[in-house]
Amino acid sequence: MERRSILKKLLASAAGISIFGFAKAGIVNNDEKEVNNITNHQDVPLFSGSTKLGNMVFIAGKGAHVEPFEIKAHTEIVLQELEKELKKAGSSMEKVLKVTVFLNDIADYQGMNDVYKGRFGKNPPVRTTVAVAKGGVPGNSLVEMDCIAYI
Amino acid sequence: MERRSILKKLLASAAGISIFGFAKAGIVNNDEKEVNNITNHQDVPLFSGSTKLGNMVFIAGKGAHVEPFEIKAHTEIVLQELEKELKKAGSSMEKVLKVTVFLNDIADYQGMNDVYKGRFGKNPPVRTTVAVAKGGVPGNSLVEMDCIAYI
Amino acid sequence: MERRSILKKLLASAAGISIFGFAKAGIVNNDEKEVNNITNHQDVPLFSGSTKLGNMVFIAGKGAHVEPFEIKAHTEIVLQELEKELKKAGSSMEKVLKVTVFLNDIADYQGMNDVYKGRFGKNPPVRTTVAVAKGGVPGNSLVEMDCIAYI
Repeated sequence: MERRSILKKLLASAAGISIFGFAKAGIVNNDEKEVNNITNHQDVPLFSGSTKLGNMVFIAGKGAHVEPFEIKAHTEIVLQELEKELKKAGSSMEKVLKVTVFLNDIADYQGMNDVYKGRFGKNPPVRTTVAVAKGGVPGNSLVEMDCIAYI
Repeated sequence: MERRSILKKLLASAAGISIFGFAKAGIVNNDEKEVNNITNHQDVPLFSGSTKLGNMVFIAGKGAHVEPFEIKAHTEIVLQELEKELKKAGSSMEKVLKVTVFLNDIADYQGMNDVYKGRFGKNPPVRTTVAVAKGGVPGNSLVEMDCIAYI
Repeated sequence: MERRSILKKLLASAAGISIFGFAKAGIVNNDEKEVNNITNHQDVPLFSGSTKLGNMVFIAGKGAHVEPFEIKAHTEIVLQELEKELKKAGSSMEKVLKVTVFLNDIADYQGMNDVYKGRFGKNPPVRTTVAVAKGGVPGNSLVEMDCIAYI
């Protein structure tokens, strides 16, 4: 691009909203969200595996629905599912900002931690963990996790 | 605005933090949040129906507190409440990124899905669903949902 | 910085992605997250007390783990813990956008509100409150709260 036209564009932009508007108005977004892995219910879109807006990524709650119904095995599956979705969205475990962990039973807290520790790198995300109703995680999973990450 | 003064402002801005600071530091925000529909408790602000910062919108947890206490009816009410708040904040169901669904009873999972499906458009948000304690949703609602969206 | 070089940088920037790229692509992030107060499990990073990306701040779930096991005392402790983390991350109670409250018992809803009201200023965050399983908050806390804020 030729310098004069860049300057013109810059000035035009400044006269409009994009640059000063940005400085003034905070975050401005011209994007639409992107989604991955849509799950249907009765042939109608129910939820996505991930959504993305700008550099922010949101991952759906992931459970484990197979044998053995044991907390370490289920935690391992759930972490792998999260990682798969994160990578598909262009992010990674190291770029996770916030995780929510829903346990089927608070007695599984230590077992979950044993597998969870270190999995998000040296600078881990924040985390909130609670046990919901027994059987309260869909599909009889012993644990469900979701997260917010970036790219 | 006269061109020379725009250029001046641009240069002044560049000398400060707003433009290069932005490019260098990632997201910079000069906004304060905006809120809608404040609920008081004993005449003191308790929570807002929505908060907004830049293009991000956060909607409060919505329940249903009327007859019939049946999952499809309550899901319908909750979705309508979410939509009302989203529109008031300048967003829409199609612009939701993440939904969290708290059920009173995991047995209501399918009934909730039957009403929920398709309500957020072709590219639905991610979702996390769990059942909390029986009676664990305030006001005896059978379901509570909150969401994060954009404008 | 001398004016000519600023202009050069501005033009160079415009020719690249940072300024117009931003206006076009929505949120652009050149930052890595920052974290505070890492908690280890078996000498390995488990979670952080807060994470920060650009102007967004995420605070870990906070509980209360001391006598008296009474909702108002625990709510007070949790709110103070949130505030400490927020300040450490450069934010404040007034800049919280979204709070999630997990109660041990829905019967504690009013007691929690009595202490919670007004604590986030005149324009409070959105909130989602549910009661999880009895004993479902780690460490026998009667309440756990996390939040999303900004700087």
